[in-house]
Amino acid sequence: MKSLIIGIVAGILCTFSFIPQVAKIIRTKHTKDLSLITFSALSLGVFLWLIYGLMIKEFPVIAANAVTLILSLTIVMMKIKHG
Amino acid sequence: MKSLIIGIVAGILCTFSFIPQVAKIIRTKHTKDLSLITFSALSLGVFLWLIYGLMIKEFPVIAANAVTLILSLTIVMMKIKHG
Repeated sequence: MKSLIIGIVAGILCTFSFIPQVAKIIRTKHTKDLSLITFSALSLGVFLWLIYGLMIKEFPVIAANAVTLILSLTIVMMKIKHG
Repeated sequence: MKSLIIGIVAGILCTFSFIPQVAKIIRTKHTKDLSLITFSALSLGVFLWLIYGLMIKEFPVIAANAVTLILSLTIVMMKIKHG
């Protein structure tokens, strides 16, 4: 039970951690210091976690990774746009 | 079985995705565009995943999050150093 709560808090933190990065890029329009490979690999990894969640029909895995994928892909697209 | 392979590939991608970001910072010494809040929240989240892995005694969860924590904390420390 204790481990379940820690898992949920961990998932929420990791999922929403990318919001300040997205906000910062929207504000500054600067992405030069960000690694395109990092956020592309992360997006692909999170996409596979989403597929995994759909295959094992686990809603928390699906929801968390769907949100992270949107944020991560937003960073990739803004990195491509701003360079 | 198919879902297990997808989960393993997803975990490997997400874990090692931060290596290019660490390498880029070491090379350029520039971290201005990175969000300190993002990588701090991510580090805390990954730390909690590590605790979760230790509690449920799942080696893949422990190993993946230990590696990610080292990479994420490295980014946080370099961000604090380079600003």
